[in-house]
Formats: sequence, structure tokens, C-alpha cells
Amino acid sequence: MSAPTSASAVDGSDHNPLGLSVELGLDRPIRLDCGVEMPSVNVAYQTYGRLNADKSNAILICHALTGDHYVADPHPLTGKPGWWIDLVGPGKLLDTDRYFLICSNVLGGCMGTTGPKDINPATGQPWGQGFPVITIGDMVQVQARLLDHLGIDQLFCAIGGSMGGMQVLEWCASYPDRVFSAVPIATAARHSAQNIAFHEVGRQAIIADPDWKNGEYLLHDTRPQRGLAVARMAAHITYLSETALHRKFGRNLQGDRDAFSYGFGADFQVESYLRHQGSTFVDRFDANSYLYITRAMDYFDLAAEHDGVLANAFRGTKTRFCVASFSSDWLFPTPESRAVVHALNAVAANVSFVEIQSDKGHDAFLLDEPEFHATLGGFIEGAARHRGLPARVGGS
Amino acid sequence: MSAPTSASAVDGSDHNPLGLSVELGLDRPIRLDCGVEMPSVNVAYQTYGRLNADKSNAILICHALTGDHYVADPHPLTGKPGWWIDLVGPGKLLDTDRYFLICSNVLGGCMGTTGPKDINPATGQPWGQGFPVITIGDMVQVQARLLDHLGIDQLFCAIGGSMGGMQVLEWCASYPDRVFSAVPIATAARHSAQNIAFHEVGRQAIIADPDWKNGEYLLHDTRPQRGLAVARMAAHITYLSETALHRKFGRNLQGDRDAFSYGFGADFQVESYLRHQGSTFVDRFDANSYLYITRAMDYFDLAAEHDGVLANAFRGTKTRFCVASFSSDWLFPTPESRAVVHALNAVAANVSFVEIQSDKGHDAFLLDEPEFHATLGGFIEGAARHRGLPARVGGS
Repeated sequence: MSAPTSASAVDGSDHNPLGLSVELGLDRPIRLDCGVEMPSVNVAYQTYGRLNADKSNAILICHALTGDHYVADPHPLTGKPGWWIDLVGPGKLLDTDRYFLICSNVLGGCMGTTGPKDINPATGQPWGQGFPVITIGDMVQVQARLLDHLGIDQLFCAIGGSMGGMQVLEWCASYPDRVFSAVPIATAARHSAQNIAFHEVGRQAIIADPDWKNGEYLLHDTRPQRGLAVARMAAHITYLSETALHRKFGRNLQGDRDAFSYGFGADFQVESYLRHQGSTFVDRFDANSYLYITRAMDYFDLAAEHDGVLANAFRGTKTRFCVASFSSDWLFPTPESRAVVHALNAVAANVSFVEIQSDKGHDAFLLDEPEFHATLGGFIEGAARHRGLPARVGGS
Repeated sequence: MSAPTSASAVDGSDHNPLGLSVELGLDRPIRLDCGVEMPSVNVAYQTYGRLNADKSNAILICHALTGDHYVADPHPLTGKPGWWIDLVGPGKLLDTDRYFLICSNVLGGCMGTTGPKDINPATGQPWGQGFPVITIGDMVQVQARLLDHLGIDQLFCAIGGSMGGMQVLEWCASYPDRVFSAVPIATAARHSAQNIAFHEVGRQAIIADPDWKNGEYLLHDTRPQRGLAVARMAAHITYLSETALHRKFGRNLQGDRDAFSYGFGADFQVESYLRHQGSTFVDRFDANSYLYITRAMDYFDLAAEHDGVLANAFRGTKTRFCVASFSSDWLFPTPESRAVVHALNAVAANVSFVEIQSDKGHDAFLLDEPEFHATLGGFIEGAARHRGLPARVGGS
């Protein structure tokens, strides 16, 4: 699912729908927050559009927990359209005619970037639980190496929702000079106790599956599909608002039923929907990756990394921020975004904040939300003007 | 864990901390909503206090999903104090010096009332998945039979929280003349899509456990403990508010840790707490009972049972209602209680409603909540006066 990097790939002229790939760290090992040094890391990524002459039009898209770099291409395993196809394309909000878009699969992922299902060169066997526990900071470090490789000093914009938003915040804290503008969406500067709790339920569901085999399931030719499906089901509830669940399903029975079955089949549409979410997820995601990436989110606490004061993470920042939350998002509720905004205000950062009225819950950032898109469009247009990028009329 | 019923048990003079037991339905089979007739049902119950001469001081306490009839006695398996010990006792809010309190383990339960872990007389083996799927209405029907057995025509009060509140509402709809006053707490007239979804996650966690063995685990001398623990963990999150989780645990690490372990052990206190909730639950609860009782809650929809109009369930009611919700309860949020109140208002019922300000979430109904207790005390005192029961001063 990956093709070798080429000069033409970097300038975007030969966009490969299957994605690109590069081995990083060969010159300088990647030192992780846990203390482990990775001698090299393979990074799968995708680019859209063309990098301009002064390399000032690059936008890094950071994906969420179960996302990947197939932002605007069909997913190679599921065939489904890219997860942000609504936003990314010629003439769209993230305009591939004007910007050079980059998205890489995160460290620890399972879509081409080195993760627990890959071969540990030291043993010749899959990493499994031998893979080092990673952090959001580690993911961002690898992305920074990718930018080095692509010869990009500064991003015009870093943008992402949920865990993607955590990466955006980490970028702004760790590489402030490399981010001209930043859009953290439906996210938080730290994972809450409730969110850690939900993640822990998912992890325990996987670990409880005998097919997990202490994480060495690939060696045993098994996969903890039942546990992973339960983990996905639990998580999926948190991505939707109660209102959205009620509107979509209510207490409706499945189409072929006009009365209760008085059994444990999926009587209700919402049950059938959740089961479907669980069973399709296991076809595209690795259980160990799920463990590692949820752990990275749980560990994320930007204030703790800066003497307990979130504002310290942004002191001296010149980045222009647009922080967005959704009113019905109970996984990353608006107060989490407000805490980020307050910290940015405390250091007199350039920040705009909007709480989008939506009843779609956390997943709203992936959906067609006109007010959100209008806000985002206005911010990016303004940032482009300040960056000296050509205006929309006339093209790039 | 049960003792034979005796006359002296009925009048409460020889309260047995291990509980009482009676076989019901021998005279007349119990016809369930699913159409199955149960030839007889064993009911485990507990009483506190003494029934007065005109049998007008009986209070039925209805327990929640994982509750039981050990309301004010130590739990025989865990040794923990009764789940409503704060409310039940001499001189307490549910005053055992004045009232005759009854609580029975629900049909389908695992603490003495007939449920899936008991022997199916037709096969001589545990019911397992052969147990009929039950409803809240079935549970209440069995409770009504218990009252028949005890010679109680009318309850002074039916009270319960969560699933207990569903039973209270069902009581008022199905046996309006038998309930003088009713206190449905932190409950709803129907289970929401989100709540069904959470229950389905729990059920799938159990069913995914290979030790579940299609529900016949007792025949195989196994128990799906890992699946049941995950189900409990997921459910437990819904019982607490985000605020309560944050206050209790925040992102605190376990006592013996001053830094991340960079592993999948329980770094955070909230993880350790959840794991503990899961692992202790399996010692006291039967996995199939969990399936059946959650299903009963999912099926509950009082309006649907009355031509889609909730008010129809209460038409002509003479019962005095006190409906209570908690402001931070997101499992049974206040609008669910309000829907009940509106329906009661529509039939000009005698109803008082209070939303208790609390940040403790759904479990607040089990906890020391002074405002809740004051409201409840006032309502019961007033109802007792209307019922002609002796006032508090002077005793019963």
C-alpha cells in the first residue's frame, strides 16, 4: 500500500492514491519519550497538490485515533472515500490547487507507518507488545522528520480533529517556529479521566480476548477480533451525541421486525448499527495499534509537560490559532477547547475560537457542518493573506 | 441464602439478615410478556419493620440492574453494607419503626429469585439461554404476586432508582389501585438509544467471551468473567458524571507511581478503579442475569405499551408521585424525568418533581445527598399523613 518516495511525489505532481512511503531516522535515531531509540521508522503518507517555490503553502493534516493518511483517496482496504474528502480537493476548503497537503499515518499506526504489527528488525518477528509505548509528542517528532525530508521548514497550517488536534497543539508547543497557523478541532490539551476510562474499557476488551495472546497474536495466526469489535462499539457511542443517536435510531426496531424477538439478536437498529461498526472496524485496524494509540492519547497532557501551566506551552508563540469545538461533543466538550483558548489568551496569542452549534457530537468534525466549514474557510483565507499566499481569486 | 417464609417473617418480627424466600405461581402460572408460562417462580426477598394491623404501611423498594434485596443487610457474598443502608433503618428516612419495607430480587436475577443460573425443572439443568426473555412488566407481576402472598392489597409507597424507578412506573401503570404513593428516581419511561447502545456493548463483551459458551457456561464449569468485567467497566462509567470522575481521580497516577510506566498496566487511578469494579463484580453477579436484565431495561417503553401516549399509562391514577432526577445524571438525564412529569400533569395527577443539584451523576441516588433525602423525607411524611399513618412524633 505504499510506493517509494520520489522527487516528483514531493512536488505533488504525481499524486499516488495508494500513498507514499519513506524510511526516516537512518541518519539520526528517533529518541522516543519513553527513552527507547528507534533506529529507523517507516512513514506512510499522502500528499495532495503542489509545494510552491518558497515552500510556504504546506498544510499538515493530523489524523484521529483510527484515521489514516487516506484523507481524500479511497481507503485501500475498505474502498470507502477519504475521511476528509468533503474538505480536501481542487477548489475545496483545503484547496489542492493552492496548498500542498500532507498527511502521514501516525507512529504506532497500522496503515504503513511503523507500528506493532510490523517486523522488529532486532528479532525478525512482529513487534507486538515489544513495541515501545509512544506519545503524541513522538508522533509529532516523526511528522517533523517527515517535513525535514520534504524540505519544508515551516507549515502554513497544522490542522486536525480529536487526536489530530492533540498533535496540532503538540506541534505548536514543540516546534512553534514551524507552524504559521494551527487549527485544533474538537480536542483538548489533556485527556480527561472519563476519556481515559473509556479507553481503558476498550483496551481491557482487547486484552480479555484469548486471541490477543499477550499481544503476540500474529505469531499464532489469530486476531482478537471480538475484543477489538467491542472496543470499537464502546468508543463509537462516545463519538455521537445522545441527540444524534436518538434522531438516527431512536428505539426503532430493525426493518424486518415489527415486534421484540424476546432474544439477544439485534432487535433495535442502534444495536445492529453498533455491531456493524465493530465488525467492519476489525477488517481495517490492528488491535495492538489500538492499544498503543489510545495509550498515547491518555498520556497526553500538555500542561504537565510545561510545569503544570498550559500557557507555558505557548509562551512566545507567533502562530495564529483557530480553535473549534462542537456544542454536543461530550467526548471533547467545549470547556476543553476553552481551556486551550484561555492559555493562548494568557500569552497574548493570536487566537479565534468558535463553538459550532451542532447536535452531531464529536464526529461532527468529520461531517458536513456548514458553519464549521465557513469558519474554517474564513480563518484559512485570512491566514493565507497574512502569509503572503496568493488570494483565492486568480488561483495559486 | 434464603430461609423459609413464616408468619413471623411477614410481620417483620424475626427479620432474617440472610433474606426470605417463597415459591410463587404454584396456584396460577405466571404468564410472561414473551408468552411463556412459568409454572412457578422462586422469589428471594427481604423485609424490614412490621406490617401494621390494616396493612397500610408497606413500602416496596425496587432495586436497580445489579442490585438485590440486601437493602440494609450486609451482602452475603461481598459482606458490604446494604445498598440503601443510609435510608433504611430505625428512625431513618425509610423508618423501619414506622413502615414495613419489602424488597425482592427481580425475576431473572441471581440472588435467589428464579433466573438463568437456576435449574430449569423441565430439563434438570441450568436455564442458561433457555430462560425466557423477561420484561420490567414481568418483574413487577412477580412482585405483585409476592404482595398477594404477604396479604398486602395496597402499597403505601413504591420507590426505586434507575431500573427500580422503571418498576415503580410500571407498578403505577399496571396496578394503579395498589400504589398509594410512588417515588421513581433517576429513571425514565423508556430506555434511550444511547442507553440501549451501552447495554449492547456490555452484552457483546459477555457474548464475545469464549467462556460464555452460548450461555451454557455452568454446564462447562466456566464463567465468562473477563467479558462480564468489561461489561461492568463500561456501564460503571455511565453511572458517574465526568465531574465526579475528575474530582475523584483526575489524571492522578496510582499511589506507587510518580511517572508513566510506558506500558499497559493501570498507570492512572481511574484505570485501577475501573478494573477493580470489573473484577469484584464478577464475584457477585451472573453473566446471563446481566444479559436478561439489561434486555428487560432496553425493552421498557411505557408509552409504547399504551398506544404511544405516555399519559395513557397513568390515566385515572390516584397515586401521589414524587419524581426526582439528578442534574449531572447523563444516563437518565432530567428531561427523561420531565417527560414522566408532563405525562402525569396531562392526567392531572398529584405529582411533585425535583431536580437535585448534584455532580455525582446517576449513582447519586445511592449516595449521601442531603437535598435528595430532605425532599424524599418531606414527600413521604406528607403521603403518610394523607394515608392516615401515625405522624413521626410519637412513632408508629
